[in-house]
Amino acid sequence: MTVEIGVEDIEDIALGATVLGTGGGGGPHVGKLVAQQAIEAHGPVELISPHDLSDDSFVVPTAQMGAPTVSVEKLPSGMEAIASLKRLARECDRQVDATMPIECGGINSTFPFAVAARLGLPVVDADGMGRAFPELQHETFNIYGVSGTPAAVSDEHGNTCLIETAENDHLEWLARGVTIRMGGVAYVSDYPMSGKQVKDTAIPGTMSLARDLGHALRTASDDAMDAIRAVTRSSIYGEAQSLFEGKIVDVQRRTEHGFVFGFVDIDGLESDEGKTMHIEFQNENLGAQIDDEYVATVPDLITVLDRETGDPIPTESLRYGARVRVLGIRTPEIMRTDEALDVWGPQTFGLNTTYKPLKH
Amino acid sequence: MTVEIGVEDIEDIALGATVLGTGGGGGPHVGKLVAQQAIEAHGPVELISPHDLSDDSFVVPTAQMGAPTVSVEKLPSGMEAIASLKRLARECDRQVDATMPIECGGINSTFPFAVAARLGLPVVDADGMGRAFPELQHETFNIYGVSGTPAAVSDEHGNTCLIETAENDHLEWLARGVTIRMGGVAYVSDYPMSGKQVKDTAIPGTMSLARDLGHALRTASDDAMDAIRAVTRSSIYGEAQSLFEGKIVDVQRRTEHGFVFGFVDIDGLESDEGKTMHIEFQNENLGAQIDDEYVATVPDLITVLDRETGDPIPTESLRYGARVRVLGIRTPEIMRTDEALDVWGPQTFGLNTTYKPLKH
Repeated sequence: MTVEIGVEDIEDIALGATVLGTGGGGGPHVGKLVAQQAIEAHGPVELISPHDLSDDSFVVPTAQMGAPTVSVEKLPSGMEAIASLKRLARECDRQVDATMPIECGGINSTFPFAVAARLGLPVVDADGMGRAFPELQHETFNIYGVSGTPAAVSDEHGNTCLIETAENDHLEWLARGVTIRMGGVAYVSDYPMSGKQVKDTAIPGTMSLARDLGHALRTASDDAMDAIRAVTRSSIYGEAQSLFEGKIVDVQRRTEHGFVFGFVDIDGLESDEGKTMHIEFQNENLGAQIDDEYVATVPDLITVLDRETGDPIPTESLRYGARVRVLGIRTPEIMRTDEALDVWGPQTFGLNTTYKPLKH
Repeated sequence: MTVEIGVEDIEDIALGATVLGTGGGGGPHVGKLVAQQAIEAHGPVELISPHDLSDDSFVVPTAQMGAPTVSVEKLPSGMEAIASLKRLARECDRQVDATMPIECGGINSTFPFAVAARLGLPVVDADGMGRAFPELQHETFNIYGVSGTPAAVSDEHGNTCLIETAENDHLEWLARGVTIRMGGVAYVSDYPMSGKQVKDTAIPGTMSLARDLGHALRTASDDAMDAIRAVTRSSIYGEAQSLFEGKIVDVQRRTEHGFVFGFVDIDGLESDEGKTMHIEFQNENLGAQIDDEYVATVPDLITVLDRETGDPIPTESLRYGARVRVLGIRTPEIMRTDEALDVWGPQTFGLNTTYKPLKH
């Protein structure tokens, strides 16, 4: 089944992916504008199911890499990511049949549509994180055996680094080093894949899920929570649940080694009165505790919403005094296997707890 | 004219290049052993004059990159540099006809012989710095219009980054970032060149000069200074002169951003009694002052020798209490043009003085 993604759909995907982005993946605004501009100029983009890919087709994911705090200051023209895709195509000596996102997150769900519109490519309705994660090994592609390299990292000055590693584990370290040198934000194409590898390893349907979530949120007549619940209920994710309501009383953020690290503290309101939620993040929300007890951790989704509007709030926009609702969504099966938890379970981020899936 | 470089010659080149290396380029010991081991296993290496290269031949320089302080701790097997040369050959889709050093310095003058011995290539009797310098734009190749990229940076884990930049100025910044991520020392092949470009831009004869200097030093019956004077007198460099004699009373070194920065203070002995020499360095010696007056600066050579043995002392081996003689050697014409001083004159390193060539 082929779907056309137009300017309005990008609005929905950007919003919905920010819910799935768990605070990270970059604020949605920039990626949305870049994608909408490209679609206005070149026409709508085909969103294709992984199952529509022939096994030997050649798929090159595209993404922005860097700290969200830098990303909102250093705006892209939309051409930078094309350089990394083209570099990889030249290296592999293949025509690219489709691009796709490597994660669901504000900027990286819509960025591939900008690339696709300009190059006349379809976007695969899938990604490798099913949410946003901070590092390049946090990919089902990596977990289930796809090589991350050759990978190309490019910047707005026409510089490109083509990285080849003996093991996927070195890719993040090297690409992040290059990204820092490129000014804290760069554009990456990694995990070049065959259609068969996409079908075997990607999390399917996440772009349509983002679009449906965004559409529901934008058109929800009253309670945003009900809209999100309704959409997630019929997805491969668990049904969204409200974990906490309160007022932000502390936010700490530091941009270090190309990431934004920190935490937010939320004092409970109404039924949560008297309790405090503490959320740690590294670009994305990693773990949520109520009074020092973990109630949700990676890989499950923890998303902070504006309590009035239902809008998801990215990590870099959390601010003192905001009234918020914290949402939890259980991730699909493919993201909760033992192999997957070895790569993105709570302990891999230094959280002193084991993964207990959210109910529903 | 073709010369064969054997195990003994490497001993001489390593020692002589450490004089030309002005304190940097890495200590000579490691590069010497790696080259000697390769020559013992594979036979002597041809040293060819730039004029023996056909105009359309393909030359790929090879070097170690990193802070000398790290380089003495993280020993190479000798295979790492081959990976970067091969990567560049693959990128350019050319057979490599020769390799060459990018600088005269302890490790980087002998390293290309290790690569050459293993691959059965000749080494060109020339380099792009005529001494050692800390950064990749410090090359006559850059000054006279050769593109530094594509450049390949490789490590001992089998990781490689292929860098392409719009301008040579970005190469150093990106390659240094990759080198830091690779553990502070990596292996680089950059400025891939035609034979014509080598003839037009390289500083000729520097490997034979290093060999002759080293040989004279090793076999000098009494005064090392006389031996160095005799060899430099008949070279395209100025005749070596003694700038100062004294005892080291302070050394400060910090390893930062992948470089070693610092200074050494020397209290005068004999005819220099009562005076103090202050030498600043960034990997290499940059400027020498006597009682706050500059007496020598980049690009001229400032080399610290052991006062008894005449052995050159690399930056990382300077130590309190050592009796030393400080040597100055004027660089060849090609290194002192206005274009050259724009790239490596004293002000480019933050020294508050203008270049005045050493006499002789």
